[in-house]
Amino acid sequence: MTKPFLFLTTISLLISSLWLTSCQESTSPQSDMIEFATPERPAGQTDVLGLRCEPIDTVRIAFIGVGSRGGSAVERYTHIDGVKIVALCDVVPENLARAQKTLTDAGLPEADTYCGEEEWKKVCEREDVDLVYCCTDWELHTPVSVYAMEHGKHAVSEVPAALTLDECWQLVNTAEKTRRHFMMLENCCYDFFEMATLNMAQHGLFGEIIHVEGAYIHNLSNYMFNDTTGYHDMWRLKYNEAHDGNPYPTHGLGPICQILNIHRGDKMDYLVSMSSDQFSLTLAAIRNHGAESDFAKRTYKKGDMNSTLIRTAKGKTILVQHNVSSPRPYSRIHLVSGTKGFAQKWPTEVLAFDSLGHDALDREAREQMLAQWEHPISKEYGQKAREVGGHGGMDFIMDSRLIYCLRNGLPLDQDVYDAAEWSSLVELTEASVLNGSKPVKIPDFTRGAWNKLQGLTLATAPDDNQ
Amino acid sequence: MTKPFLFLTTISLLISSLWLTSCQESTSPQSDMIEFATPERPAGQTDVLGLRCEPIDTVRIAFIGVGSRGGSAVERYTHIDGVKIVALCDVVPENLARAQKTLTDAGLPEADTYCGEEEWKKVCEREDVDLVYCCTDWELHTPVSVYAMEHGKHAVSEVPAALTLDECWQLVNTAEKTRRHFMMLENCCYDFFEMATLNMAQHGLFGEIIHVEGAYIHNLSNYMFNDTTGYHDMWRLKYNEAHDGNPYPTHGLGPICQILNIHRGDKMDYLVSMSSDQFSLTLAAIRNHGAESDFAKRTYKKGDMNSTLIRTAKGKTILVQHNVSSPRPYSRIHLVSGTKGFAQKWPTEVLAFDSLGHDALDREAREQMLAQWEHPISKEYGQKAREVGGHGGMDFIMDSRLIYCLRNGLPLDQDVYDAAEWSSLVELTEASVLNGSKPVKIPDFTRGAWNKLQGLTLATAPDDNQ
Repeated sequence: MTKPFLFLTTISLLISSLWLTSCQESTSPQSDMIEFATPERPAGQTDVLGLRCEPIDTVRIAFIGVGSRGGSAVERYTHIDGVKIVALCDVVPENLARAQKTLTDAGLPEADTYCGEEEWKKVCEREDVDLVYCCTDWELHTPVSVYAMEHGKHAVSEVPAALTLDECWQLVNTAEKTRRHFMMLENCCYDFFEMATLNMAQHGLFGEIIHVEGAYIHNLSNYMFNDTTGYHDMWRLKYNEAHDGNPYPTHGLGPICQILNIHRGDKMDYLVSMSSDQFSLTLAAIRNHGAESDFAKRTYKKGDMNSTLIRTAKGKTILVQHNVSSPRPYSRIHLVSGTKGFAQKWPTEVLAFDSLGHDALDREAREQMLAQWEHPISKEYGQKAREVGGHGGMDFIMDSRLIYCLRNGLPLDQDVYDAAEWSSLVELTEASVLNGSKPVKIPDFTRGAWNKLQGLTLATAPDDNQ
Repeated sequence: MTKPFLFLTTISLLISSLWLTSCQESTSPQSDMIEFATPERPAGQTDVLGLRCEPIDTVRIAFIGVGSRGGSAVERYTHIDGVKIVALCDVVPENLARAQKTLTDAGLPEADTYCGEEEWKKVCEREDVDLVYCCTDWELHTPVSVYAMEHGKHAVSEVPAALTLDECWQLVNTAEKTRRHFMMLENCCYDFFEMATLNMAQHGLFGEIIHVEGAYIHNLSNYMFNDTTGYHDMWRLKYNEAHDGNPYPTHGLGPICQILNIHRGDKMDYLVSMSSDQFSLTLAAIRNHGAESDFAKRTYKKGDMNSTLIRTAKGKTILVQHNVSSPRPYSRIHLVSGTKGFAQKWPTEVLAFDSLGHDALDREAREQMLAQWEHPISKEYGQKAREVGGHGGMDFIMDSRLIYCLRNGLPLDQDVYDAAEWSSLVELTEASVLNGSKPVKIPDFTRGAWNKLQGLTLATAPDDNQ
């Protein structure tokens, strides 16, 4: 991260002389901010906002990484029409065998299997693949997706899509150059309460949105220290050992950014991020491996609790939190506060509207509202989603929408700019934390087009009354 | 606020040259922070940590400001033994008449009344007053309290105790010079759930505390725009018109700072604060006075939603929020997250402990825990408090504790440093907001003694088995 800071230091030296006046008048709020350079858009390349590609009758899918997340993805796709699973790729033979069995158990033909570290390249190079579906560990999400797009495939990836700003820009530039779809698989955007609040927001029930909150609070500490059934090669623990900030921001951020119309009329402007010290990982290491273990003696850079505040160009604020090591009930918060109404999902569902006295609605009135404002997409896929499962159904709805849009040649629900914006917090929050919570400018990954689309549209085919 | 910024600008110029290296290594987290100068402690003056004063058999009280908050205070004191209400002071004759009637209705002798802008000085100058109890608008809290202490009285004040750092230091220096008690009347520290979580924290049920949250989220918008029955001369609206940041941080901050042992083993180190734009006050102005009214056309500096992140010297984090204008259910959040357990009060009461599976306890188990860990002080005063009332009883418990400590010559539950620390956020958050959420150093109002006391003690007399 040396370069941007060198750059910024120069900036700060340059503005220091002006700063004396600006601070007296407090008219220069952004006078002193960490700012990462935005690479110029290559000549002849244009944005992919609202990108439509040729409809695909049967979507031929290759899965890269069929362990825990990828394994359940393969299972879900045995329930989706208009797809053909042509290839499965992993580094663990057992994962491939299990995925293959999933197909044959469902009466589907076997897929070609690829086993090994570099095999995913061969898969991306195949002629008979339309969509590369990446469920590897975090480090491979961008390399696989970029390589897939460069070989003419649409690419989707588990979250986060990228771990650095450089990777974010790789995704954006590759999608713009190849005109292929890239979508990050942010499943939480498809959960039922989140979709209902999106629907309410788009119908003005909250009025002007003022403030939103999201989080990923999920105690994974024992799982991270499990070297047999946990994450392959303990990759998640290794990341928490090497990095601070918020390495996993997108589950909380996705649904609230959709509600705020980020890069569809507003944009994230800057953030400040703060982490507590690390307390819980060492305790989990002792619990799982003993006080004398190497794990117990390591230094883990990741503070237990990270909180990040973001301000948008239109003066809205966002709170995003991350904690995967402390004993807390699961929460993504999902809070929406506007000039006319309020919603919150965790720790308990709350709905309140000024017109109804702005106290929380009782259970009956709340469930009535949620039923009345259920999102058409939840209605369309909800019942089958609950049967198939996958995080209560949201995974199946996400996959169904993805395939529906590809088959109908429609823009995808989430574009490459969403993926870049939401994933960019991984590096941006760490930069703020490592510099005493200093403000950090958030890049405009659309490079000037954030105000071109007005509002989020989840596309449907003209002849479809969905 | 010019001076500190000039000062800081110089700092930033000085460190700029070093900063290049420091940022490459990220070893200089506090390299660039807004810092307000700490006045040197006057010679011969020492801290008032754990201050004990001579026991007072009957506490003679003078109330300054007997409107809404002060009026109910007078009523509560008719139920407390060992006190004598000697004087009532206000600018509104009707308030004085109502308070006087409260006394006579309770069969108590009338008090001397003082009506007028400057009358509070005469009250503070009386010989027969032990305690000056200040419930005026925000602007007078510090002037009245300082003047009272300078005239040998103990002083208590409604929240916030001070609006600027200068006022915070006035309170600290006057208390240290005169050796009189000053306590801010932070009633929320005495609410039942808050006291129970303090008790649990002090008995280690949460383990090491990692992160806490507090807030004042209370929709006062219509009340602020009511020019007849609202705040006297609309003082609260005027403050929101002139200031941004968090002007009312102490209700959320008090209970969680007690749990973190702030200036009793830890201290608040720095903060970052962010506000949304202002949307709701203008809408409330239109609602209450019409779109053509002067109110509707004014500029209100106070953004609807303010969020502040604070880091402590021991690596804990605090989130404090403020919103008094948007339609949201009431909340002070009161969240406590530690290495062994978790508690949250709003929007719904949550308790979770690692030893019990770290999921939220069900209602029955939660109420069992709350009963088991009810704070001794809640037990002692709880029943009568609920009868007398005052925000569900917490006001009465606060007053009872105050008088108990004064009568027994004990340190008060909250000292002048608590008042200064919690109130200092009024100016510190605004400084951060006006400078693009830049980090702001939080002064150590104990001037080096923050680690002298180990843990918060709510004092009881030796012969008292309370």
